[in-house]
Order: sequence, then C-alpha cells, then structure tokens
Amino acid sequence: MAYTVQDIATALDAECYGNTGLAIAKVAEPASAGPDDLALLTNPKFVDGLARGAARVALLWPGADWQALGLEAAIVASRGRFALAGLTAMMDPGQHFPRGIHETALIDPSADLAENIRVAPYAVIGPRARIGANSTIGPFCHIGADSVLGEGAFLRDHVSIGARVKIGAGFRAQPGARIGADGMSFVTPEVSGVERARGSLGDQGDVKAQKWARIHSLGAVSIGDDVEIGANTCVDYGTIRDTSIGNGTKIDNLVHVAHNVTVGTDCLFAAGVGIAGSTRIGNNVVLGGHVGVTDNTVIGDNVIAGGGTKVLSKVPGGQVILGYPAVKMDTHLEMYKALRRLPRLFKQVAALQKSVSKNGSND
Amino acid sequence: MAYTVQDIATALDAECYGNTGLAIAKVAEPASAGPDDLALLTNPKFVDGLARGAARVALLWPGADWQALGLEAAIVASRGRFALAGLTAMMDPGQHFPRGIHETALIDPSADLAENIRVAPYAVIGPRARIGANSTIGPFCHIGADSVLGEGAFLRDHVSIGARVKIGAGFRAQPGARIGADGMSFVTPEVSGVERARGSLGDQGDVKAQKWARIHSLGAVSIGDDVEIGANTCVDYGTIRDTSIGNGTKIDNLVHVAHNVTVGTDCLFAAGVGIAGSTRIGNNVVLGGHVGVTDNTVIGDNVIAGGGTKVLSKVPGGQVILGYPAVKMDTHLEMYKALRRLPRLFKQVAALQKSVSKNGSND
Amino acid sequence: MAYTVQDIATALDAECYGNTGLAIAKVAEPASAGPDDLALLTNPKFVDGLARGAARVALLWPGADWQALGLEAAIVASRGRFALAGLTAMMDPGQHFPRGIHETALIDPSADLAENIRVAPYAVIGPRARIGANSTIGPFCHIGADSVLGEGAFLRDHVSIGARVKIGAGFRAQPGARIGADGMSFVTPEVSGVERARGSLGDQGDVKAQKWARIHSLGAVSIGDDVEIGANTCVDYGTIRDTSIGNGTKIDNLVHVAHNVTVGTDCLFAAGVGIAGSTRIGNNVVLGGHVGVTDNTVIGDNVIAGGGTKVLSKVPGGQVILGYPAVKMDTHLEMYKALRRLPRLFKQVAALQKSVSKNGSND
Repeated sequence: MAYTVQDIATALDAECYGNTGLAIAKVAEPASAGPDDLALLTNPKFVDGLARGAARVALLWPGADWQALGLEAAIVASRGRFALAGLTAMMDPGQHFPRGIHETALIDPSADLAENIRVAPYAVIGPRARIGANSTIGPFCHIGADSVLGEGAFLRDHVSIGARVKIGAGFRAQPGARIGADGMSFVTPEVSGVERARGSLGDQGDVKAQKWARIHSLGAVSIGDDVEIGANTCVDYGTIRDTSIGNGTKIDNLVHVAHNVTVGTDCLFAAGVGIAGSTRIGNNVVLGGHVGVTDNTVIGDNVIAGGGTKVLSKVPGGQVILGYPAVKMDTHLEMYKALRRLPRLFKQVAALQKSVSKNGSND
Repeated sequence: MAYTVQDIATALDAECYGNTGLAIAKVAEPASAGPDDLALLTNPKFVDGLARGAARVALLWPGADWQALGLEAAIVASRGRFALAGLTAMMDPGQHFPRGIHETALIDPSADLAENIRVAPYAVIGPRARIGANSTIGPFCHIGADSVLGEGAFLRDHVSIGARVKIGAGFRAQPGARIGADGMSFVTPEVSGVERARGSLGDQGDVKAQKWARIHSLGAVSIGDDVEIGANTCVDYGTIRDTSIGNGTKIDNLVHVAHNVTVGTDCLFAAGVGIAGSTRIGNNVVLGGHVGVTDNTVIGDNVIAGGGTKVLSKVPGGQVILGYPAVKMDTHLEMYKALRRLPRLFKQVAALQKSVSKNGSND
Repeated sequence: MAYTVQDIATALDAECYGNTGLAIAKVAEPASAGPDDLALLTNPKFVDGLARGAARVALLWPGADWQALGLEAAIVASRGRFALAGLTAMMDPGQHFPRGIHETALIDPSADLAENIRVAPYAVIGPRARIGANSTIGPFCHIGADSVLGEGAFLRDHVSIGARVKIGAGFRAQPGARIGADGMSFVTPEVSGVERARGSLGDQGDVKAQKWARIHSLGAVSIGDDVEIGANTCVDYGTIRDTSIGNGTKIDNLVHVAHNVTVGTDCLFAAGVGIAGSTRIGNNVVLGGHVGVTDNTVIGDNVIAGGGTKVLSKVPGGQVILGYPAVKMDTHLEMYKALRRLPRLFKQVAALQKSVSKNGSND
C-alpha cells in the first residue's frame, strides 16, 4: 500500500494536482482522515468534514478548487463514484489467507488445480474438480465432485460448491454462499390443493391430505464470468437442465435463486431477494432488497424493482416497478396517494348521500 | 445408471412401448436430449422441442402417439409430474462423498453410530450423539452433544445440529441448515414499549430506554420422519418445550422457524418464509415464498398462503390467503381491483359533488 | 444443575415458600412437568396445566395461592417473564464443546488469546487476532486476521469473523453468523437507470446496458458490548468507515446489515430484517420480522416497526409503524379499514350517480 497520489491518479485515469509524490496510507472520510490519508470528497455537500480532519490530499469532484480547500494535493475524477471502484480495488487490505496449499487442505488426487492457487486451512476439494489459475479457496470451503471454477476465483470461508457446478472466470463468493443445493421440488400423487388454487385464483377444491414425493435435482448450476454471490446466498440445482446465471451478474447476501431459474447478464440483486422456480430474469435487471418473484414467470431486460416489490406475474422489459403486487412505480404512487386520501373520500360520499337524499326528498 | 426403458417403467409403475431394452444415459429436456437420453415430455405443449433434439425415447403424457413422434420407445405415466419423483430418484448423480468414516472426521468416543454410515472429511460428532443406520454426514457438519438422527439421514455439507436435537428417520438437510440455534427471546426489566404498543395497537406510551435480558433456550428441537430442511434455513430451540416439526414436512432455503413454533405434518414452506415465536402451524399447510407469520398465532390445517403473504392474526383451516395483512385470496383480488379503480372513483365523486352542488343550488 | 428452590429464588431476587430445600432437575411447562421439575406458571391463564403434570414446585405470578394449587413449594416473581431470564441462564444445558484448545484448532502464532479460552475442533484463528478471556470459539469458526473479540465471547459453530472486525465484550454469535462479508457496492461507468429512476421516482430514462464495477470494502465492522447475532445473519464491511452496531443490540436469524449501516444501542431486530447501505438506525429501535429499511435513510430512537414493514423513507423517533410503505400504525389501520370498505363505496357512488342523474333530469 505504498501508493503515491500520482500512482493512484494514473490507475484511475484521473487528473492530479499539487504535491503528487505524497504517499497515501489509506482512504478515509474527510472528517476522520489523518495526514497520510486520502480523503474521499466527491460530493461538495460533505466539504465541511474536511476541516474536521487532517487530510492533505483528497479525491475531489470536477471543478473543485483544491487549493482553496487548503489541500497540498488533489485527485479529480469525472465520476467520483466510479473512480471509487478503482481506488478501493487498489487499497483493499484483503483477508490474509495463507499462501499456497495449506497442509490441512484435502484435495482429491483426481482434482485438477492450475497454477498459483491458494487453498486455505480445512478446505476440501472433491474428485475431478477443476480450479482455474490464480484462484483462492478460503477456509472450510467445500468444492464438490466434477465442479469447475474458472480463473481468478476468490472464495471467502465456508462456501459450498455442489457437485457438477460450472462457474466461469472471476467468480467471487462471500462467506456461507451455497451454490448447488438441491432444488425444492415436491409433488403429490394426485392433483393438490395448491395446483387447484392456482388455477382457480383461490379455490383449492375438496381438501385432501397428501404426502409430498421428492423430485431430485438432476441438473446443476451454470454461472458465467465475473459473477459475485453474497454471504449465505443460495443458488439451487435445476431439475433437468441447469439453473443459470449470466456474465457480470452481482448478487447480495441472503438471496434465493431457485431451481431452473435463468438470470441474464449484468443483473444486480440486493439482499433478501427470492426468485422462485423456473422463472426467467432478463439482462441488466435490478432488484431491490426483499424483492420476491413468483415461479414460472418472466422479467424482461432492464426492469428495475424497488425494495420490497413482490412480482406475481410477467413484467415487460424496461419497466420500473414497486409494490405488492408489483405495478409500475407511477401507478403505485397514484394508488398510494388515493389510498391515503380514502378516509376523506368516505366523508365526501357520506355528505353527498345526505345532500342527495335531501334533494331527492324535495322531489 | 445403466437402466433400460423397461427398468424405469417398472420402477415408476408406468407403461412402456417399443424398444424397451434401450439403455438410458440420463434424463434431458426434449430439445437438448442426445440419442441415449430419456426426453422428458409430459406436457404436449412442449412437443416441438423433440424435433430439435436427438431423443429416441421419451416419458410421455397419457394418450401420446409415440410412433407418430418418431420415437423408438416410450414410457407413459398417468401423472407425469409424479412420475418425475421416482425417475429423478433413480437417476440422481449424488454428491460423491467418500465412503466410510473419513480419517479426519472427529467422532466422540461416547457417540453411537449404527451400521453403514458415511462420515465425510472434517465432520464433527459430539458426545453421546446417536446416528441411525445408512446415514450420510457431509463435510464440515457438526452434530451436537446428545442429539439423535434417525435412519437414512442425508446431510449435505456445513450443517449444524445443535445439542439435544431429536430428528426422525429419512431426514435431509441442505448445506448450511441450522437446527438448534438459540431462540431469540429477550425481555426488559419493566414493561416495554413493544408490549404496550401491541396491547394498544400502536401506542407505546412513555418511551423509556431499557436493556434487554436474555432468555436462554432450555428446550431443544424435535423433528419427525421424512423431513427436509433447505440451505441456510434456521430452526431455533424452544424456550422450555421443544420447537417441533411434524412428519413429512418440507422446508426450502433461508426459512426461519422460531422458538416454540409447532409445525404439523406434510407442510411445505417455500424459500424465505419466517414463522415467529410460539406460533402453531397445522397439517398440510403450504406457505409461498417470503411468507411471514406473526408470533403466538395459529394457522389451521390445509391453509395455502400465496407468495409474500404476511399473516398478522389467526387463520382458520382450509383458507387460501394472500396479501399484507393476509386476507382470503378472493377478498384480496376484490380489494386490489377496487384500489386500481380508485383514482377513477375520485373523479366520479368530484363530478357528483359538482352536479349535486348545482342541483342543490336549484332548490 | 443441583439447584434448590431457595438457590433459584435467591438468584432471581424472588420470594419463595414451602419446602425450599427441594432440588430442581429442570424447568418444564406445567402439563409436562415431572416431580423434580420447576413448573413455569407465571400467567394464571395456564393454571389448568398444573393438574395434568406432576410438579411439586412452580414459578408463580404475584398473589398466587401456591398451597391452594396443591404445591409443596413455590417461587413468586414480580415480573415472571423477566425472572425467566435469570432462571434460564442458570439452567442452560449448554453445547458441551470440549474444554481447552482442541488439537485440531489452528491458531496463528501471532494471534493473542487471553486466559480460559475454549477453542473447539477445527476452528481457525488468523494472524494477529485477539480473543478476550473466558471466550468460547466453536467448531468450524473462522476468526480473520487482525480481528478483536472482547471478553466472554461465545461463538457457536460455523461462525465467520472477517479480517479487521472489532467486537466488544460479551458477544454471542449463533451458527453461521457472518460478520464482515464484503459490502455489496457496484457502480456503472456512466449514470445508471437506477440512479435516474430514483431521482425521478420511476423514470429510468434511456435504457443502456452497462457493466458493474466493484467497489471494494476498505472499512470493517465495529460491534459494541453485549451484542448477539443470530444464525446465518450477515453484517457487511463498510466501504470507507466501519459498519457499526451499538452496545446491547440483539439481532435474530437471517438478518442483513449492509455496508456503512450504523445501528444504535439496545436495538432488537427480529428474523429476516434487512437494512440497506448507509442507513442509520437510532437507539432502542425494535424491528419485527421481515422488516426492510431502504438505503441512506434514518430511523430515529425508540421506533417500533411491526412485522413486514418496509421503510422507504425517514422515520422520526418514537413512532410505531406498519405497512408497505411504512406509515404510523394508526394510519395504517385507518387506511386498511377504508380499503376493506371500498367495494361498498363503489356501490354507494354508483347509486348516487343514478340518483343524481334522475334528480338532474328533473331539472
């Protein structure tokens, strides 16, 4: 972490000014920055913090007057939030897992590990698994039989990769991610109340107790390149075909992706999202926290769903949606405003009834 | 996996036709089936896929003309989805955990393991635990002190079974399942704002900061036979009595079953369900994804709750419910339709007001 | 567990009567209590159970006539639920992890462990980690580099503590808790549809597919004293500053606390809660099950949110809220009642229209 202001500016493809040879210890918020820290000040709204800290150099918004701010040096990025990606990648302190393959790691003799791989203590790699070069397998990870991880995988601790899972390059998994749990698929010997209630929108017919028979998962999970899976998130096997996640998709913590689901490229799922079985999610779809999507439906490309949205039916591409059940965001706002005004409406109608009744009695 | 068409038909108690000696490599969707695969085609809607694949044999719906479909052989099941249970059980490729008890497994000398048990690498089995015959304990599983697992348990990796948990035969747990976490039960020295707000439906009275005192869990968890628990799902200890789950109940990923909850037999909980403390769930209850149920309430037998339903009070048996708060599904649809038409109603009332005001002025 | 009635009463600072030398085997519900059990009967509503069990002693409500109940002894607590905290702490049967540092535990030579610490089988403690006295580190726990755990920590199994996490005294973590997963923070090179939709309340402008660039987490997690974290709950690293949780806060299972979130003191979060990035939660805040809070917002002190509430904007201190979007509980009830009566209102307005039209035609 011995980067100078110039090093950082060069890496970010940003402009720098002043004493660009200053060495940066770490990145800090303006108010808590020490004299060797780079203060992060990409929004003029937070400029007051600078005076409370001791920063001599800051990452600033375009047009900022670094000298007037009393700084010795500055980096200026045209889109500060985007520059933060490069900056934090440079300064990431990491997890300090031991280098090399730890003596307690159990690697099946038939597994195939490429060069420059870290395998942390108490990791287990099963038969015929293949791990790409420059990968890190964290402590207590289990890599199942016949699974494939592409180059540059980084698995934190306690990650499960089930048998036969195929993952592309640049994969990241947070602690406790579960890729390849069995799909939750059960069936009754005769048509069930659930099947009838779905067909009739609410009538389950004659209630009859039945046992559930298990449908095993013969499919696996296929994940593209540059995918990230959050802590304790679960991606289930498909039933016959694979559950699949496209290139560049990023998934937060505690998300559920059920059997047979297809997720497109460059999607973003916030924490607590749940996608039920066999649903298809397009490309560049953004789902907010706690969003749920019903089974066997389709969400088009570029859909954005606000936090808590529950999608109960198909959503065309490009829509911005909210609510339970999901509707277009402007429709939701209109419905909601009407609901807030509803108690008043009741009063108005009561007054009208009185008035009309009086008018009527005049007939 | 060297089953013939005849073997499979016999196992499924289904009819078969044509060259029933054909050996089946695996099950596939029609469009991606190879010449040695059994195409799964139980719904005539997907018949077009068959021509795009190379299947010579398919599992077909009753009445299908297999010869007209150009097949060499066919299996016909009266309820294809149910046949899929038996078929996938036969063809499940499994996890390939090593046979026997791995040398790195730590088994307390006082634990009692029946015959034919697999204990995978780095599993830990605590004092006085008892494991039934023909069970598999996956990698990184922890089986707590004095716990009991019945015959034929299958635990994937990273499963936690807390001390004193009792589980029947045929148990399945997906990666990261937690059975027997401590119940979340805290109490303030004096009556809290929450207790008052619940009594008054919204008024917490005078606000007073208090510390939370921990109520420890003295109860455990009791689980019946043939239960399945999904990945990263949590079932908490009871406070005094056990939290309990009845025979045949199947629970998906990321579900929370709190302390003292009683779940009946043959229930099905989809992913993300949460059941709060001391609630009783009847038999054959089906809860969709992200369903929440408040504490200390009762859900009757055969209730079906659609995805996202939040149950805030008692639900009689047999109801099909939806919404937040939960109402009967047809009531929900009626309320929702009314809400969609509400902006128009406001306009109608405004027009009426104008009209009545005009009429009134005619008086 | 050889406590007498007198021992327990003394520990709870409660009154006791009768044969106070009776030894107590365990605590039980009245109907299932054996002759050596302490029946828990702090609510007269459940008094009938006593006759069905065999208890000779009970924990009773103030004013109960223990002799008339046929008991040989009694403990009377002024607030029975609070007494339960002390009682269950005394009687907790525990997890029976082995004493001392297990031979399979891997402890980096640079780690610093105080006295009287248990480290269970297959726990890993990383470089420069510091563990306070009288702590228990359960099986398969991973304590990351440079992390600090205060005195008296109790970690069940499979807990992840990431590098650089700082935790105070008296910490408890349930199985699978993840402290210090990377924050979920991604940014597009140019302004994204999400950024535009948030600004415009629903209009994402021209749709454009962009890749997500990762913002790494340079901050860590800071947790105060006496905090409990539930099973499979996730607390993410901050981006620049630490994510922080104040003293005395208790968090249930499957909760998500995102990057940069600040949680105050003595809060209580039920299972399934999700707090999105950079949000600030005050002190003594109680969030029911499945509550979601949007990012970059503020919840004041002493707020209580009912189960399923989704908070989409700032909440002033002291409010009791419910609903999606969250409103004050009494407003919610009023809106909900109006919604239930809405179909009737439509009929009334239709009748009015008919009546007015008739009246109007009389003009």
